[in-house]
Amino acid sequence: MNTIDQLKFDEEGLIPAIAQDEKDGVVLMMAWMNRESLAKTLETRRATYWSRSRKKLWMKGEESGNIQEVKSIYVDCDADVVLLTVRQVGGAACHTGHRTCFYREITGVSEALKESGDILFDPQKVYRK
Amino acid sequence: MNTIDQLKFDEEGLIPAIAQDEKDGVVLMMAWMNRESLAKTLETRRATYWSRSRKKLWMKGEESGNIQEVKSIYVDCDADVVLLTVRQVGGAACHTGHRTCFYREITGVSEALKESGDILFDPQKVYRK
Repeated sequence: MNTIDQLKFDEEGLIPAIAQDEKDGVVLMMAWMNRESLAKTLETRRATYWSRSRKKLWMKGEESGNIQEVKSIYVDCDADVVLLTVRQVGGAACHTGHRTCFYREITGVSEALKESGDILFDPQKVYRK
Repeated sequence: MNTIDQLKFDEEGLIPAIAQDEKDGVVLMMAWMNRESLAKTLETRRATYWSRSRKKLWMKGEESGNIQEVKSIYVDCDADVVLLTVRQVGGAACHTGHRTCFYREITGVSEALKESGDILFDPQKVYRK
C-alpha cells in the first residue's frame, strides 16, 4: 500500500499544496507537488514542491535558506489538495521578502490591490543571481 | 480598471481559492473560482466558487445553509491563487460534516490516512437529495 496512490493528481500529475505556519496558522503560500515531491517531503520533512516554470523539483529554501520544516500533512475530502503545516525558517516564505505570499488584499473590483505586511528580508541580498 | 484583470486564471479560466476561518486561522477548504465567481464573491461577500464537476457557479452553503461570509480576500505574489478569510456559518465547511475538509493526515507513505476532528453535522440530514 502506498498512501500517495490514494491522492488525485491532475492531468499534469500535480496537486495543489498549501503551506501554513504551524505556530499561528498564517497561510504562507500555495505551490504544486507531483508524486515525487510529495514522497520526498514525507521522507525528508522539508517541503519540496514541483516548479511548473522551471519544470523540476524545488526544495523550498534551497537558494534562500528559508526552508520549511514540515510538521504535518493533511489531505482534503476529495483527496485533491494537500495542506502542510510548517515551521518557516527565516520567518518569510515569499520570494519578495514578505512573510506570506498573500500580502495583497483585493478590496473591490475597481480598487487597487492593497499591500500589507512588513518585508522581512531583502530579496536582492538573499537571491544572488 | 478592473482588479480582477490583474489575476492570472489558468487555461480553463480558473484560480485556486483557499478559505480560512478568520477567527482562528483554520484552513477550511480549497475550491476554484472563475472571473464571474470572484466578482460575485466581491459583490455579495458570500463565497461563491466554480464547481468543476457540475460546471456551474456554486455559492458555498446554498444547499446546506453553511454559507461563508467573506471578511477579506488576498492574492498571492504570482497573482494566481486567492485566499479568503471567512466566517463559516454552521461551523463546518466540509460536506462530510467535518469542520475542515483537511481532516485526514498523511503520516507516511506506507501508513493509512489518519482521520481526526469531530463531525459537526450529519450530512444525510443536511443534504437531502
